[in-house]
Amino acid sequence: MTFISFLGPKGTFTHEAACLVGDELVPYCTIPAVLESVNNDEVEFGVVPIENSIEGPVGITLDSLAHKFDLKIHREIIIPINQNLIVNPGCKMEDIEDIYSHSQAIAQCQEFINRNKIQPHYAVSTAKATKDIIGFKNKAAIGNRIAAQLYGLEILEANIQDTDNNATRFVVVSKNDHEITGRDKTSIIFSIYEDRPGGLYNILGIFQKNSINLTKIESRPSKKGLGKYLFFVDFNGHIEDSVVQDILREIDDNTYFLKVLGSYPEY
Amino acid sequence: MTFISFLGPKGTFTHEAACLVGDELVPYCTIPAVLESVNNDEVEFGVVPIENSIEGPVGITLDSLAHKFDLKIHREIIIPINQNLIVNPGCKMEDIEDIYSHSQAIAQCQEFINRNKIQPHYAVSTAKATKDIIGFKNKAAIGNRIAAQLYGLEILEANIQDTDNNATRFVVVSKNDHEITGRDKTSIIFSIYEDRPGGLYNILGIFQKNSINLTKIESRPSKKGLGKYLFFVDFNGHIEDSVVQDILREIDDNTYFLKVLGSYPEY
Repeated sequence: MTFISFLGPKGTFTHEAACLVGDELVPYCTIPAVLESVNNDEVEFGVVPIENSIEGPVGITLDSLAHKFDLKIHREIIIPINQNLIVNPGCKMEDIEDIYSHSQAIAQCQEFINRNKIQPHYAVSTAKATKDIIGFKNKAAIGNRIAAQLYGLEILEANIQDTDNNATRFVVVSKNDHEITGRDKTSIIFSIYEDRPGGLYNILGIFQKNSINLTKIESRPSKKGLGKYLFFVDFNGHIEDSVVQDILREIDDNTYFLKVLGSYPEY
Repeated sequence: MTFISFLGPKGTFTHEAACLVGDELVPYCTIPAVLESVNNDEVEFGVVPIENSIEGPVGITLDSLAHKFDLKIHREIIIPINQNLIVNPGCKMEDIEDIYSHSQAIAQCQEFINRNKIQPHYAVSTAKATKDIIGFKNKAAIGNRIAAQLYGLEILEANIQDTDNNATRFVVVSKNDHEITGRDKTSIIFSIYEDRPGGLYNILGIFQKNSINLTKIESRPSKKGLGKYLFFVDFNGHIEDSVVQDILREIDDNTYFLKVLGSYPEY
Protein backbone atom coordinates (compact mmCIF):
# COMPACT_ATOMS: atom_id res chain seq x y z
CA MET A 1 0.00 0.00 0.00
CA THR A 2 1.33 3.44 -0.96
CA PHE A 3 0.66 6.12 1.64
CA ILE A 4 0.42 9.78 0.62
CA SER A 5 0.59 12.74 2.99
CA PHE A 6 -0.98 16.10 2.12
CA LEU A 7 -1.52 19.56 3.59
CA GLY A 8 -4.78 19.05 5.48
CA PRO A 9 -7.26 19.12 6.98
CA LYS A 10 -9.60 17.23 4.65
CA GLY A 11 -11.44 19.51 2.28
CA THR A 12 -8.50 21.71 1.19
CA PHE A 13 -7.50 22.20 -2.44
CA THR A 14 -4.40 20.14 -1.63
CA HIS A 15 -6.74 17.30 -0.64
CA GLU A 16 -8.29 17.58 -4.11
CA ALA A 17 -4.81 17.33 -5.69
CA ALA A 18 -3.80 14.40 -3.44
CA CYS A 19 -6.88 12.43 -4.57
CA LEU A 20 -5.25 12.29 -8.03
CA VAL A 21 -2.18 10.55 -6.57
CA GLY A 22 -3.79 7.69 -4.65
CA ASP A 23 -6.29 6.53 -2.05
CA GLU A 24 -4.35 6.10 1.19
CA LEU A 25 -4.26 9.77 2.19
CA VAL A 26 -2.84 11.11 5.47
CA PRO A 27 -3.47 14.79 6.32
CA TYR A 28 -0.76 16.84 8.12
CA CYS A 29 -1.39 20.33 9.42
CA THR A 30 1.63 22.22 8.03
CA ILE A 31 3.72 22.10 4.85
CA PRO A 32 6.97 21.26 6.73
CA ALA A 33 5.14 18.37 8.49
CA VAL A 34 4.10 16.93 5.09
CA LEU A 35 7.70 17.11 3.83
CA GLU A 36 9.03 15.65 7.11
CA SER A 37 6.67 12.65 6.76
CA VAL A 38 8.28 11.83 3.39
CA ASN A 39 11.76 12.44 4.76
CA ASN A 40 11.07 10.03 7.70
CA ASP A 41 9.66 7.31 5.39
CA GLU A 42 6.26 7.49 7.10
CA VAL A 43 4.78 7.89 3.61
CA GLU A 44 6.13 7.47 0.09
CA PHE A 45 4.71 10.69 -1.39
CA GLY A 46 3.72 14.10 -0.03
CA VAL A 47 1.52 16.69 -1.77
CA VAL A 48 2.02 20.43 -1.15
CA PRO A 49 1.12 23.62 -3.05
CA ILE A 50 4.10 25.41 -4.66
CA GLU A 51 2.63 28.38 -6.58
CA ASN A 52 -0.63 30.09 -7.42
CA SER A 53 -1.25 32.00 -10.62
CA ILE A 54 -2.59 35.05 -8.74
CA GLU A 55 -0.76 35.11 -5.42
CA GLY A 56 2.58 33.75 -6.55
CA PRO A 57 4.93 31.35 -4.83
CA VAL A 58 4.13 29.48 -1.63
CA GLY A 59 7.20 30.70 0.25
CA ILE A 60 7.28 28.00 2.92
CA THR A 61 7.30 25.23 0.28
CA LEU A 62 10.14 26.82 -1.72
CA ASP A 63 12.15 27.64 1.42
CA SER A 64 11.68 24.13 2.90
CA LEU A 65 12.78 22.42 -0.34
CA ALA A 66 15.75 24.80 -0.61
CA HIS A 67 17.04 24.74 2.95
CA LYS A 68 15.54 21.97 5.08
CA PHE A 69 14.91 18.78 3.09
CA ASP A 70 16.67 16.83 0.35
CA LEU A 71 13.55 15.60 -1.41
CA LYS A 72 12.73 15.27 -5.09
CA ILE A 73 9.82 16.72 -7.01
CA HIS A 74 8.35 13.54 -8.53
CA ARG A 75 5.29 14.95 -10.24
CA GLU A 76 3.34 18.22 -10.66
CA ILE A 77 -0.44 18.71 -10.57
CA ILE A 78 -2.29 21.87 -11.63
CA ILE A 79 -5.79 22.48 -10.26
CA PRO A 80 -8.08 25.40 -11.23
CA ILE A 81 -9.10 27.23 -8.06
CA ASN A 82 -12.74 28.20 -7.74
CA GLN A 83 -13.47 29.97 -4.46
CA ASN A 84 -16.94 29.82 -2.95
CA LEU A 85 -18.78 31.82 -0.31
CA ILE A 86 -19.72 29.17 2.28
CA VAL A 87 -22.41 29.87 4.90
CA ASN A 88 -24.62 28.06 7.39
CA PRO A 89 -27.86 26.69 5.89
CA GLY A 90 -30.44 29.43 5.35
CA CYS A 91 -28.04 32.38 5.78
CA LYS A 92 -28.37 35.36 3.45
CA MET A 93 -25.81 37.87 2.19
CA GLU A 94 -27.06 40.60 4.54
CA ASP A 95 -26.47 38.37 7.60
CA ILE A 96 -22.73 38.15 6.99
CA GLU A 97 -20.40 40.40 8.98
CA ASP A 98 -17.20 38.38 9.12
CA ILE A 99 -15.45 36.15 6.60
CA TYR A 100 -12.75 33.56 7.36
CA SER A 101 -10.19 31.86 5.15
CA HIS A 102 -6.53 31.21 4.41
CA SER A 103 -4.66 34.45 3.67
CA GLN A 104 -4.19 33.45 0.00
CA ALA A 105 -7.93 32.81 -0.46
CA ILE A 106 -8.73 36.16 1.21
CA ALA A 107 -6.28 37.85 -1.18
CA GLN A 108 -7.82 36.05 -4.17
CA CYS A 109 -11.32 37.36 -3.29
CA GLN A 110 -10.31 40.89 -2.26
CA GLU A 111 -12.71 42.66 -4.65
CA PHE A 112 -15.68 40.55 -3.53
CA ILE A 113 -14.86 41.24 0.15
CA ASN A 114 -14.46 45.00 -0.41
CA ARG A 115 -17.65 45.25 -2.47
CA ASN A 116 -19.69 43.49 0.21
CA LYS A 117 -17.99 45.33 3.11
CA ILE A 118 -17.30 42.13 5.07
CA GLN A 119 -14.50 42.01 7.65
CA PRO A 120 -11.82 39.46 6.63
CA HIS A 121 -10.06 37.18 9.15
CA TYR A 122 -7.17 34.79 8.53
CA ALA A 123 -7.34 31.05 9.26
CA VAL A 124 -4.64 28.38 8.81
CA SER A 125 -6.53 26.76 5.90
CA THR A 126 -9.72 27.15 3.85
CA ALA A 127 -11.01 23.91 5.40
CA LYS A 128 -10.31 25.03 9.00
CA ALA A 129 -12.12 28.32 8.25
CA THR A 130 -15.11 26.38 6.92
CA LYS A 131 -15.21 24.17 10.03
CA ASP A 132 -14.91 27.18 12.35
CA ILE A 133 -18.03 28.99 11.06
CA ILE A 134 -20.41 26.09 11.81
CA GLY A 135 -23.38 27.45 13.80
CA PHE A 136 -22.57 31.17 13.34
CA LYS A 137 -25.19 32.93 11.21
CA ASN A 138 -23.12 36.13 10.81
CA LYS A 139 -19.95 34.32 9.68
CA ALA A 140 -18.96 33.03 6.26
CA ALA A 141 -15.93 31.15 4.96
CA ILE A 142 -14.14 31.07 1.60
CA GLY A 143 -13.38 27.54 0.46
CA ASN A 144 -14.06 24.75 -1.95
CA ARG A 145 -17.09 22.58 -2.64
CA ILE A 146 -15.61 19.49 -0.87
CA ALA A 147 -15.25 21.42 2.40
CA ALA A 148 -18.82 22.79 2.25
CA GLN A 149 -20.21 19.26 1.72
CA LEU A 150 -17.96 17.77 4.41
CA TYR A 151 -19.33 20.11 7.10
CA GLY A 152 -23.00 20.30 5.99
CA LEU A 153 -22.76 23.94 4.91
CA GLU A 154 -24.14 25.77 1.86
CA ILE A 155 -22.56 27.65 -1.02
CA LEU A 156 -24.28 31.06 -1.14
CA GLU A 157 -22.24 32.27 -4.12
CA ALA A 158 -19.84 30.33 -6.34
CA ASN A 159 -16.66 31.56 -8.12
CA ILE A 160 -16.14 34.70 -6.01
CA GLN A 161 -12.42 34.96 -6.93
CA ASP A 162 -11.23 38.22 -8.55
CA THR A 163 -10.08 36.63 -11.81
CA ASP A 164 -10.75 33.43 -13.72
CA ASN A 165 -7.07 32.67 -14.33
CA ASN A 166 -6.78 31.22 -10.85
CA ALA A 167 -4.90 27.92 -10.72
CA THR A 168 -2.59 26.35 -8.17
CA ARG A 169 0.37 24.17 -8.99
CA PHE A 170 1.02 21.36 -6.52
CA VAL A 171 4.11 19.18 -6.32
CA VAL A 172 4.24 15.54 -5.30
CA VAL A 173 7.56 15.02 -3.48
CA SER A 174 9.32 11.73 -2.80
CA LYS A 175 12.84 10.44 -2.24
CA ASN A 176 13.30 9.52 -5.91
CA ASP A 177 13.24 11.23 -9.30
CA HIS A 178 10.56 10.22 -11.80
CA GLU A 179 11.87 8.12 -14.70
CA ILE A 180 12.30 9.89 -18.05
CA THR A 181 9.13 10.16 -20.16
CA GLY A 182 10.28 12.33 -23.08
CA ARG A 183 8.15 15.30 -22.01
CA ASP A 184 9.77 16.33 -18.75
CA LYS A 185 10.67 19.36 -16.66
CA THR A 186 13.56 19.86 -14.27
CA SER A 187 13.50 22.23 -11.29
CA ILE A 188 16.68 23.76 -9.85
CA ILE A 189 17.67 26.38 -7.29
CA PHE A 190 20.85 28.45 -7.50
CA SER A 191 22.57 31.46 -5.96
CA ILE A 192 24.79 33.77 -7.94
CA TYR A 193 27.98 35.41 -6.69
CA GLU A 194 26.90 38.83 -5.37
CA ASP A 195 30.19 40.48 -6.26
CA ARG A 196 30.18 39.50 -9.95
CA PRO A 197 28.17 41.82 -12.23
CA GLY A 198 25.64 40.24 -14.57
CA GLY A 199 25.45 36.99 -12.59
CA LEU A 200 21.87 36.10 -13.45
CA TYR A 201 22.36 37.28 -17.05
CA ASN A 202 25.26 34.86 -17.49
CA ILE A 203 23.32 31.89 -16.06
CA LEU A 204 20.31 32.58 -18.32
CA GLY A 205 22.77 32.70 -21.23
CA ILE A 206 23.69 29.04 -20.56
CA PHE A 207 20.06 28.02 -21.20
CA GLN A 208 19.82 30.37 -24.17
CA LYS A 209 22.82 28.98 -26.03
CA ASN A 210 21.54 25.40 -25.52
CA SER A 211 18.04 26.38 -26.76
CA ILE A 212 16.47 25.20 -23.51
CA ASN A 213 13.19 26.90 -22.64
CA LEU A 214 12.59 28.19 -19.10
CA THR A 215 9.02 27.55 -17.89
CA LYS A 216 9.45 29.45 -14.62
CA ILE A 217 11.84 31.84 -12.95
CA GLU A 218 11.19 32.91 -9.39
CA SER A 219 13.39 34.80 -6.96
CA ARG A 220 13.29 34.23 -3.21
CA PRO A 221 15.30 35.95 -0.50
CA SER A 222 18.35 33.89 0.42
CA LYS A 223 17.74 34.92 4.06
CA LYS A 224 21.24 36.41 4.11
CA GLY A 225 20.13 40.06 3.74
CA LEU A 226 18.09 42.34 1.47
CA GLY A 227 19.07 42.12 -2.21
CA LYS A 228 20.49 38.57 -1.91
CA TYR A 229 18.44 36.00 -3.75
CA LEU A 230 17.98 32.34 -4.52
CA PHE A 231 16.61 31.71 -8.02
CA PHE A 232 14.12 28.90 -8.62
CA VAL A 233 14.13 27.91 -12.29
CA ASP A 234 12.08 25.25 -14.10
CA PHE A 235 13.08 24.23 -17.61
CA ASN A 236 12.21 21.63 -20.23
CA GLY A 237 14.25 18.41 -20.10
CA HIS A 238 15.18 15.53 -17.77
CA ILE A 239 18.32 15.16 -15.69
CA GLU A 240 19.17 12.01 -17.70
CA ASP A 241 19.36 14.07 -20.93
CA SER A 242 22.99 14.78 -21.82
CA VAL A 243 22.25 18.45 -22.71
CA VAL A 244 20.69 18.93 -19.25
CA GLN A 245 23.73 17.35 -17.62
CA ASP A 246 26.02 19.72 -19.57
CA ILE A 247 23.94 22.74 -18.56
CA LEU A 248 23.94 21.76 -14.89
CA ARG A 249 27.71 21.29 -14.94
CA GLU A 250 28.19 24.78 -16.41
CA ILE A 251 25.76 26.36 -13.93
CA ASP A 252 27.54 24.60 -11.06
CA ASP A 253 30.85 26.11 -12.21
CA ASN A 254 29.34 29.62 -12.21
CA THR A 255 27.24 29.72 -9.03
CA TYR A 256 28.14 29.22 -5.38
CA PHE A 257 25.03 27.12 -4.66
CA LEU A 258 23.14 24.75 -6.95
CA LYS A 259 20.51 22.21 -5.93
CA VAL A 260 18.52 20.03 -8.32
CA LEU A 261 14.95 19.65 -7.05
CA GLY A 262 14.06 16.88 -9.47
CA SER A 263 12.94 15.86 -12.96
CA TYR A 264 9.32 14.93 -13.55
CA PRO A 265 6.73 14.75 -16.34
CA GLU A 266 5.14 18.04 -17.45
CA TYR A 267 1.48 18.19 -16.37
CA MET B 1 1.53 70.63 7.27
CA THR B 2 2.57 67.41 5.50
CA PHE B 3 0.34 64.45 6.31
CA ILE B 4 1.70 60.92 6.00
CA SER B 5 -0.41 57.76 5.90
CA PHE B 6 0.98 54.39 7.00
CA LEU B 7 -0.11 50.77 7.42
CA GLY B 8 -1.49 50.81 10.94
CA PRO B 9 -2.57 50.38 13.60
CA LYS B 10 -0.05 52.28 15.73
CA GLY B 11 2.76 50.10 16.96
CA THR B 12 3.54 48.28 13.69
CA PHE B 13 6.98 48.23 12.11
CA THR B 14 5.54 50.46 9.39
CA HIS B 15 4.69 52.99 12.13
CA GLU B 16 8.38 52.91 13.10
CA ALA B 17 9.36 53.60 9.45
CA ALA B 18 6.75 56.38 9.09
CA CYS B 19 8.18 58.18 12.15
CA LEU B 20 11.33 58.80 10.03
CA VAL B 21 9.26 60.65 7.39
CA GLY B 22 7.37 63.15 9.56
CA ASP B 23 5.12 63.82 12.53
CA GLU B 24 1.58 64.09 11.14
CA LEU B 25 0.89 60.37 10.86
CA VAL B 26 -2.44 58.86 9.83
CA PRO B 27 -2.89 55.07 10.21
CA TYR B 28 -4.90 53.09 7.62
CA CYS B 29 -5.79 49.45 8.10
CA THR B 30 -4.77 47.96 4.73
CA ILE B 31 -1.98 48.56 2.21
CA PRO B 32 -4.42 49.50 -0.64
CA ALA B 33 -6.10 52.03 1.71
CA VAL B 34 -2.71 53.71 2.37
CA LEU B 35 -2.03 53.94 -1.38
CA GLU B 36 -5.57 55.18 -2.06
CA SER B 37 -5.12 57.98 0.50
CA VAL B 38 -2.13 59.27 -1.50
CA ASN B 39 -4.00 58.83 -4.78
CA ASN B 40 -6.96 60.86 -3.41
CA ASP B 41 -4.69 63.67 -2.12
CA GLU B 42 -5.82 63.04 1.46
CA VAL B 43 -2.12 62.86 2.34
CA GLU B 44 1.11 63.73 0.54
CA PHE B 45 3.07 60.56 1.39
CA GLY B 46 2.17 56.96 2.24
CA VAL B 47 4.44 54.39 3.88
CA VAL B 48 4.05 50.66 3.12
CA PRO B 49 6.34 47.59 3.41
CA ILE B 50 7.60 46.24 0.06
CA GLU B 51 9.96 43.37 0.92
CA ASN B 52 11.43 41.48 3.83
CA SER B 53 14.86 39.84 3.76
CA ILE B 54 13.48 36.51 5.08
CA GLU B 55 9.93 36.28 3.78
CA GLY B 56 10.38 38.01 0.44
CA PRO B 57 8.12 40.44 -1.37
CA VAL B 58 4.94 41.92 0.09
CA GLY B 59 2.69 40.78 -2.76
CA ILE B 60 -0.17 43.20 -2.18
CA THR B 61 2.20 46.21 -2.33
CA LEU B 62 3.84 45.07 -5.57
CA ASP B 63 0.51 44.12 -7.15
CA SER B 64 -1.16 47.41 -6.13
CA LEU B 65 1.71 49.51 -7.53
CA ALA B 66 1.70 47.42 -10.73
CA HIS B 67 -2.03 47.25 -11.45
CA LYS B 68 -4.10 49.66 -9.36
CA PHE B 69 -2.31 52.96 -8.75
CA ASP B 70 -0.06 55.30 -10.70
CA LEU B 71 2.07 56.42 -7.80
CA LYS B 72 5.80 57.05 -7.51
CA ILE B 73 8.27 55.56 -5.08
CA HIS B 74 9.74 58.75 -3.54
CA ARG B 75 12.01 57.25 -0.92
CA GLU B 76 13.02 53.89 0.60
CA ILE B 77 13.57 53.07 4.28
CA ILE B 78 15.17 49.89 5.62
CA ILE B 79 14.44 48.85 9.21
CA PRO B 80 16.00 45.87 11.02
CA ILE B 81 13.21 43.65 12.33
CA ASN B 82 13.56 42.35 15.86
CA GLN B 83 10.61 40.24 16.91
CA ASN B 84 9.68 39.93 20.57
CA LEU B 85 7.54 37.55 22.59
CA ILE B 86 4.94 39.84 24.17
CA VAL B 87 2.86 38.68 27.14
CA ASN B 88 0.62 40.05 29.87
CA PRO B 89 2.51 41.29 32.95
CA GLY B 90 3.69 38.41 35.15
CA CYS B 91 3.13 35.64 32.56
CA LYS B 92 5.71 32.89 32.25
CA MET B 93 6.76 30.73 29.31
CA GLU B 94 4.88 27.67 30.64
CA ASP B 95 1.60 29.65 30.76
CA ILE B 96 1.56 30.23 26.99
CA GLU B 97 -0.60 27.98 24.81
CA ASP B 98 -1.44 30.24 21.85
CA ILE B 99 0.58 32.84 19.97
CA TYR B 100 -0.84 35.55 17.68
CA SER B 101 0.79 37.66 14.98
CA HIS B 102 0.87 38.67 11.33
CA SER B 103 1.56 35.68 9.07
CA GLN B 104 5.01 37.07 8.12
CA ALA B 105 6.00 37.46 11.79
CA ILE B 106 4.78 33.91 12.52
CA ALA B 107 6.88 32.67 9.58
CA GLN B 108 9.91 34.64 10.81
CA CYS B 109 9.72 32.96 14.24
CA GLN B 110 8.84 29.43 13.08
CA GLU B 111 11.73 27.73 14.89
CA PHE B 112 10.94 29.46 18.20
CA ILE B 113 7.25 28.48 17.90
CA ASN B 114 8.05 24.85 17.05
CA ARG B 115 10.63 24.55 19.85
CA ASN B 116 8.18 25.85 22.45
CA LYS B 117 5.20 23.87 21.07
CA ILE B 118 2.90 26.90 20.99
CA GLN B 119 -0.12 26.99 18.65
CA PRO B 120 0.23 29.84 16.09
CA HIS B 121 -2.74 31.99 14.96
CA TYR B 122 -2.79 34.66 12.27
CA ALA B 123 -3.78 38.29 12.89
CA VAL B 124 -3.99 41.19 10.43
CA SER B 125 -0.97 42.94 11.97
CA THR B 126 1.59 42.51 14.76
CA ALA B 127 -0.01 45.46 16.59
CA LYS B 128 -3.56 44.04 16.36
CA ALA B 129 -2.26 40.71 17.70
CA THR B 130 -0.62 42.54 20.61
CA LYS B 131 -3.84 44.40 21.42
CA ASP B 132 -5.92 41.20 21.20
CA ILE B 133 -3.99 39.28 23.89
CA ILE B 134 -4.58 41.89 26.62
CA GLY B 135 -5.96 40.13 29.70
CA PHE B 136 -5.30 36.54 28.49
CA LYS B 137 -2.65 34.80 30.58
CA ASN B 138 -2.30 31.84 28.17
CA LYS B 139 -1.88 33.98 25.05
CA ALA B 140 1.20 35.69 23.65
CA ALA B 141 1.85 37.92 20.64
CA ILE B 142 4.84 38.49 18.39
CA GLY B 143 5.55 42.15 17.80
CA ASN B 144 7.79 45.11 18.39
CA ARG B 145 8.78 47.08 21.46
CA ILE B 146 6.56 50.09 20.57
CA ALA B 147 3.43 47.88 20.55
CA ALA B 148 4.28 46.24 23.88
CA GLN B 149 4.73 49.68 25.51
CA LEU B 150 1.59 51.08 23.86
CA TYR B 151 -0.62 48.38 25.41
CA GLY B 152 1.09 48.00 28.81
CA LEU B 153 2.41 44.52 28.07
CA GLU B 154 5.78 42.89 28.76
CA ILE B 155 8.51 41.44 26.58
CA LEU B 156 9.20 37.93 27.92
CA GLU B 157 11.89 37.18 25.35
CA ALA B 158 13.53 39.54 22.83
CA ASN B 159 14.87 38.74 19.31
CA ILE B 160 12.97 35.48 18.83
CA GLN B 161 13.28 35.59 15.02
CA ASP B 162 14.96 32.63 13.29
CA THR B 163 17.85 34.61 11.81
CA ASP B 164 19.55 37.91 12.49
CA ASN B 165 19.49 39.05 8.86
CA ASN B 166 15.89 40.16 9.25
CA ALA B 167 15.20 43.59 7.74
CA THR B 168 12.19 45.09 6.01
CA ARG B 169 12.34 47.58 3.17
CA PHE B 170 9.57 50.18 3.18
CA VAL B 171 8.70 52.59 0.40
CA VAL B 172 7.37 56.11 0.79
CA VAL B 173 5.01 56.72 -2.14
CA SER B 174 3.79 60.05 -3.47
CA LYS B 175 2.57 61.57 -6.72
CA ASN B 176 6.03 62.87 -7.63
CA ASP B 177 9.52 61.52 -8.25
CA HIS B 178 12.32 62.55 -5.90
CA GLU B 179 14.82 65.02 -7.42
CA ILE B 180 18.18 63.62 -8.51
CA THR B 181 20.78 63.29 -5.72
CA GLY B 182 23.64 61.50 -7.51
CA ARG B 183 23.18 58.29 -5.52
CA ASP B 184 19.79 57.08 -6.74
CA LYS B 185 17.85 53.96 -7.61
CA THR B 186 15.09 53.46 -10.14
CA SER B 187 12.34 50.82 -9.87
CA ILE B 188 10.56 49.43 -12.92
CA ILE B 189 8.09 46.66 -13.77
CA PHE B 190 7.98 44.91 -17.13
CA SER B 191 6.43 41.91 -18.87
CA ILE B 192 8.23 39.97 -21.59
CA TYR B 193 6.64 38.49 -24.69
CA GLU B 194 5.79 34.88 -23.76
CA ASP B 195 6.29 33.61 -27.29
CA ARG B 196 9.84 34.91 -27.73
CA PRO B 197 12.60 32.69 -26.32
CA GLY B 198 15.18 34.29 -24.05
CA GLY B 199 12.97 37.30 -23.26
CA LEU B 200 14.32 37.98 -19.77
CA TYR B 201 17.86 37.20 -20.88
CA ASN B 202 17.65 39.88 -23.59
CA ILE B 203 16.31 42.51 -21.17
CA LEU B 204 19.05 41.80 -18.62
CA GLY B 205 21.53 42.17 -21.48
CA ILE B 206 20.44 45.81 -21.93
CA PHE B 207 21.55 46.59 -18.36
CA GLN B 208 24.72 44.51 -18.77
CA LYS B 209 25.97 46.32 -21.88
CA ASN B 210 25.35 49.71 -20.20
CA SER B 211 27.21 48.57 -17.03
CA ILE B 212 24.15 49.30 -14.89
CA ASN B 213 23.96 47.26 -11.71
CA LEU B 214 20.66 45.59 -10.72
CA THR B 215 20.00 45.82 -6.97
CA LYS B 216 16.88 43.67 -7.08
CA ILE B 217 15.04 41.32 -9.41
CA GLU B 218 11.74 39.84 -8.34
CA SER B 219 9.15 37.93 -10.32
CA ARG B 220 5.41 38.12 -9.59
CA PRO B 221 2.57 36.32 -11.34
CA SER B 222 1.01 38.53 -14.01
CA LYS B 223 -2.40 37.10 -12.95
CA LYS B 224 -2.87 35.89 -16.53
CA GLY B 225 -2.05 32.22 -15.84
CA LEU B 226 0.71 30.01 -14.40
CA GLY B 227 4.15 30.66 -15.89
CA LYS B 228 3.35 34.26 -16.91
CA TYR B 229 5.29 36.83 -14.92
CA LEU B 230 5.82 40.50 -14.24
CA PHE B 231 9.42 41.35 -13.33
CA PHE B 232 10.19 44.01 -10.73
CA VAL B 233 13.70 45.34 -11.19
CA ASP B 234 15.59 47.99 -9.19
CA PHE B 235 18.81 49.41 -10.59
CA ASN B 236 21.30 52.17 -9.88
CA GLY B 237 20.58 55.52 -11.57
CA HIS B 238 17.92 58.24 -11.83
CA ILE B 239 15.34 58.66 -14.58
CA GLU B 240 16.93 62.04 -15.41
CA ASP B 241 20.25 60.33 -16.28
CA SER B 242 20.62 60.00 -20.06
CA VAL B 243 21.90 56.42 -19.80
CA VAL B 244 18.78 55.46 -17.79
CA GLN B 245 16.57 57.11 -20.41
CA ASP B 246 18.32 55.13 -23.18
CA ILE B 247 17.91 51.88 -21.25
CA LEU B 248 14.22 52.50 -20.62
CA ARG B 249 13.63 53.29 -24.31
CA GLU B 250 15.30 50.01 -25.33
CA ILE B 251 13.37 48.00 -22.72
CA ASP B 252 10.12 49.60 -23.87
CA ASP B 253 10.85 48.48 -27.45
CA ASN B 254 11.37 44.88 -26.31
CA THR B 255 8.59 44.31 -23.77
CA TYR B 256 4.81 44.53 -24.07
CA PHE B 257 4.42 46.28 -20.71
CA LEU B 258 6.77 48.71 -18.95
CA LYS B 259 5.97 50.89 -15.97
CA VAL B 260 8.46 53.13 -14.16
CA LEU B 261 7.75 53.08 -10.41
CA GLY B 262 10.03 56.00 -9.63
CA SER B 263 13.55 57.25 -8.96
CA TYR B 264 14.63 57.93 -5.39
CA PRO B 265 17.77 58.17 -3.23
CA GLU B 266 19.38 54.88 -2.16
CA TYR B 267 18.90 54.33 1.58
